[in-house]
Amino acid sequence: MIGEHSSKQYDHELETIRSKVLQMGGIVETQFIDAMTCFRIGNAERAERVIAEDDTVNQLELSLDDACSHLIVKRQPAANDLRTVMATVKVITDLERIGDEAAKIARTSRDMHARGPVSINHYEIVRAISASTSAMLHDALDAFARLDGRQALALIAQDTVVDHEFRQIMRTLITFMMEDPRTISSALDTLWVAKAIERIGDHAKNIAEYVIYVVDGKDIRHAKVLPELPDQVSDGER
Amino acid sequence: MIGEHSSKQYDHELETIRSKVLQMGGIVETQFIDAMTCFRIGNAERAERVIAEDDTVNQLELSLDDACSHLIVKRQPAANDLRTVMATVKVITDLERIGDEAAKIARTSRDMHARGPVSINHYEIVRAISASTSAMLHDALDAFARLDGRQALALIAQDTVVDHEFRQIMRTLITFMMEDPRTISSALDTLWVAKAIERIGDHAKNIAEYVIYVVDGKDIRHAKVLPELPDQVSDGER
Repeated sequence: MIGEHSSKQYDHELETIRSKVLQMGGIVETQFIDAMTCFRIGNAERAERVIAEDDTVNQLELSLDDACSHLIVKRQPAANDLRTVMATVKVITDLERIGDEAAKIARTSRDMHARGPVSINHYEIVRAISASTSAMLHDALDAFARLDGRQALALIAQDTVVDHEFRQIMRTLITFMMEDPRTISSALDTLWVAKAIERIGDHAKNIAEYVIYVVDGKDIRHAKVLPELPDQVSDGER
Repeated sequence: MIGEHSSKQYDHELETIRSKVLQMGGIVETQFIDAMTCFRIGNAERAERVIAEDDTVNQLELSLDDACSHLIVKRQPAANDLRTVMATVKVITDLERIGDEAAKIARTSRDMHARGPVSINHYEIVRAISASTSAMLHDALDAFARLDGRQALALIAQDTVVDHEFRQIMRTLITFMMEDPRTISSALDTLWVAKAIERIGDHAKNIAEYVIYVVDGKDIRHAKVLPELPDQVSDGER
């Protein structure tokens, strides 16, 4: 049996890991915002910084995975506690993939602007999906920080909006390309960026699902109907 | 301390999980092959089967994740043994994502063929990348089954070939679209399929990296230079 002392140690170590995961979350959130600025105005130097930051994120993934393994071996958590650690390991993977997508956006942006003037109103086309996804990612990290299942559920519903926006962008870009083949190159770059944004939305949704798994004990990945959560007292201003 | 009896139990339970993960691997491998047949000849019924199979794969992900958690709680493995379980959890995630990509290929194929005759030689364009990725996935599952670090290393190198093939496809398709805007719709469908194939290659590479982590104790994710493995006696015919 694990005594109270050991259990407190466990809680403390788990909180340390969780706060580092949130730092990692902050870094990929900034990467995403910076990558979108690169896409909008084509700042090559900033693009390189976003791409370089990917190394930091990758190293964080490795060291946080390690920390989770150590915690399990040292503290031998019971089923309930282990659930949180396993969910954290999955969140770390999703954060790393978000960093990858942000770096992809930065690379595409750098190359697109380096080729010369962009032949379409590229940023306007992705403005809405970028805003929705930024909000999703922010909410996912917030829900993970506060282990707020209600907030997590709300943002999972948001993912269908992002998917809808992506299909809309596809249609818009196909129309552009068909009307004027000279836009094809810029349209494809914009499409890749939109795709990367949509993927970031998917990862934010995954994170929300892991939050619900921790809070609620329910694994709602792949659920057709989302569960109802009991009413919570409002958290007031965030 | 874990006695010999308990350790044998642990080994037995781990092997049961690993063989189920391999079954899951077999399913997604078949899904991918079937999806590519749909892309080639447009069999709508088979496409629906590939898409429906995604549910099976999703359920397998959930139950295998659970089995890994139970194993940890019940057997409290030491650091070395835990490494294998954690790597297995990550492999499960990658297999599920491969299933997602196969379903995407099936959906795109179904919709593309439903719209009428395809205006480009779509299958020829992806034939090489499809063959390389199939081989990578097969090798990754094989390396996981036999915990063969050498085979895993070899296939990681293969991923740059897949990436190169993907960029080649991009250039080919852009040329088609620019020369004849009527090909745009089919070219984009082909591009999404190629992208999904390239992602499957990424996931196969991830699996190989986890195999090396288990075999070698080295985490080579994000390593710039791949480690050298000691010479092994050849496994003979596979």
